[in-house]
Amino acid sequence: MKGINSRPGTLRELGELSLLDWIRKKAGQTGRQKGLLLGIGDDAAAFSAPAGETLLATSDAMAEGVHFDLSYTTLYQVGFKLVSVNASDIYAMGGAPRYALLDLCAPSDMEFDGISSFFDGVLDALKHYGAVLAGGDITASRSGLVLGMSMIGSAKKIVKRSGAKPGDEVFVTGCLGDSACGLWLLKKLGRPVLMEEGKKAAFDLTHGVKKKVRLGWETAGPLVKRHLMPIAKKPPKGASAMIDISDGLAIDLIRLCKESRVGVKIYEELLPVSGHMGKAAPVLGLAPLRLALGGGEDYELLYTARPGQHHGKKYKAWRIGEITRAGYIISGRGGEMKELKTEGYEHFTSG
Amino acid sequence: MKGINSRPGTLRELGELSLLDWIRKKAGQTGRQKGLLLGIGDDAAAFSAPAGETLLATSDAMAEGVHFDLSYTTLYQVGFKLVSVNASDIYAMGGAPRYALLDLCAPSDMEFDGISSFFDGVLDALKHYGAVLAGGDITASRSGLVLGMSMIGSAKKIVKRSGAKPGDEVFVTGCLGDSACGLWLLKKLGRPVLMEEGKKAAFDLTHGVKKKVRLGWETAGPLVKRHLMPIAKKPPKGASAMIDISDGLAIDLIRLCKESRVGVKIYEELLPVSGHMGKAAPVLGLAPLRLALGGGEDYELLYTARPGQHHGKKYKAWRIGEITRAGYIISGRGGEMKELKTEGYEHFTSG
Repeated sequence: MKGINSRPGTLRELGELSLLDWIRKKAGQTGRQKGLLLGIGDDAAAFSAPAGETLLATSDAMAEGVHFDLSYTTLYQVGFKLVSVNASDIYAMGGAPRYALLDLCAPSDMEFDGISSFFDGVLDALKHYGAVLAGGDITASRSGLVLGMSMIGSAKKIVKRSGAKPGDEVFVTGCLGDSACGLWLLKKLGRPVLMEEGKKAAFDLTHGVKKKVRLGWETAGPLVKRHLMPIAKKPPKGASAMIDISDGLAIDLIRLCKESRVGVKIYEELLPVSGHMGKAAPVLGLAPLRLALGGGEDYELLYTARPGQHHGKKYKAWRIGEITRAGYIISGRGGEMKELKTEGYEHFTSG
Repeated sequence: MKGINSRPGTLRELGELSLLDWIRKKAGQTGRQKGLLLGIGDDAAAFSAPAGETLLATSDAMAEGVHFDLSYTTLYQVGFKLVSVNASDIYAMGGAPRYALLDLCAPSDMEFDGISSFFDGVLDALKHYGAVLAGGDITASRSGLVLGMSMIGSAKKIVKRSGAKPGDEVFVTGCLGDSACGLWLLKKLGRPVLMEEGKKAAFDLTHGVKKKVRLGWETAGPLVKRHLMPIAKKPPKGASAMIDISDGLAIDLIRLCKESRVGVKIYEELLPVSGHMGKAAPVLGLAPLRLALGGGEDYELLYTARPGQHHGKKYKAWRIGEITRAGYIISGRGGEMKELKTEGYEHFTSG
């Protein structure tokens, strides 16, 4: 068994046991979590529940070629995003992230340096959310990298998808469609952009775009960052129902309405759209409204609240409409009513 | 969106949303778990902790072509085993399984019938262990089926790997090597054996074996079952340290010793080996001792206990040796001492 200091090239050369030792040491160096009795290194992680709080558990998988493409994403970014996606689910229940379990399914010929970057991303993100890596599983994969994470959190009071009532106001916590627009930019660029180094990377998109307009870092950077390294939003106080936007505003809003057995009316003019996206989308030949409604991977919170009872004063959110008895309606800028369609990302059928 | 009653052929035809509805309905029909406040259908599962108990969380991934081969394993069996593997980890901490989260990463062209069988296996096994499906994630896979499960359990008192002391006795809860021997039989047979129908399937292994001996169902059936549908063992009372045998007795025993900073001496003549395995192994050209020490996937519990203080009277386990101050030793049938090597399954390097 080789020591980790010899820096072997691939996972096959390193072996599972040495990798486990390395992960255990690395995870142990990054923060502690109150209540964690036993972390990595036994058959299961052990923890105590915070007094009087409800426990939450969620899991999300990300597969190479489906959820991420290493031709324009770094492994650091993949690790960071895997954590954010799970943290977003915990926040969407009104909770706080606490412990993460990681299932790493990697090809034997994968370079150790890549795995090391991946863990840097995972651990940096966990630190951001105040959570720790408490366990998981490492196995070989036949083809491509497949990542699974489950996250355990807790909440004083959980917020379900099913609590919306007619008359409630509908809010989102940030601009919509940026992530999808960033993904389009990355696909055109076809190479990774190192957001994690905090540098303004070269990003002059002059080819492959519809109009001959040069998109500089000031416009493209924030959009790409929203896709590569999303930051999950902490929940507001007083929400009556909540969901995080992972598959697109329209599909996730309709999910919330179905669970609550209500309808909704939103207003196109109230949808928050960033200046960056408003500028970049036409250059790419994309319609900002379509990106905002169906782009997906926004990882913003979408919630409802009784009028006047929503969130703290300093909480940043945009009102986009109201809950009704039935029907899913979007009111256009000219006041025309359209049916809100479930456009958004659906696995197996979307391409 | 097609209804589930139209029984579409593939996941692509069915779509993610219909599949989710189907899973939610199916999971809801199979048992309830005290303390589960919110199951499938929200951003995260919500549950309360049993009063005074410590919570446990574990996860395991299984990838097609690495952990299972659909040319000799049914999807029902894969589902059943995925649950057993996780339940075994919870039992190995002295706990009881409660909630499971499933990450299903499946190719779009996978048949719905296969997914349906897989869920039957998952839900039957969860029922066996008194646990319920509380959430998870469904995504498309680029190639092959990748499954992840995380399980949450609880224990009045957790048993770590690190509690063994010199003088403690060492026990295993069942025969060793059966699962590995069953896997060899399946590879020779090259087709699935339907254990789940409770039938004595045709199983005459007359070709591809070393000696011209016919292995009938009576011998082969129990071995194959141990590999395809292992049943995790409930923990004993009073164990000082415990681990489940997933990668082989030798490797897992050494893991326990390293965590406890102790040595061990086990006796070849005390290792429980089934009559089936003793009969089948030579026919396959395999050494029973090697299978018992390094075969892996036994999912028996390996534990230590102070002399005279171990488990209840009715608890079935075999004493195989004792904990020492240092060194990993196996005493042969003739009394000769050999060093116990970490033979067993290691990901990335084995295979």
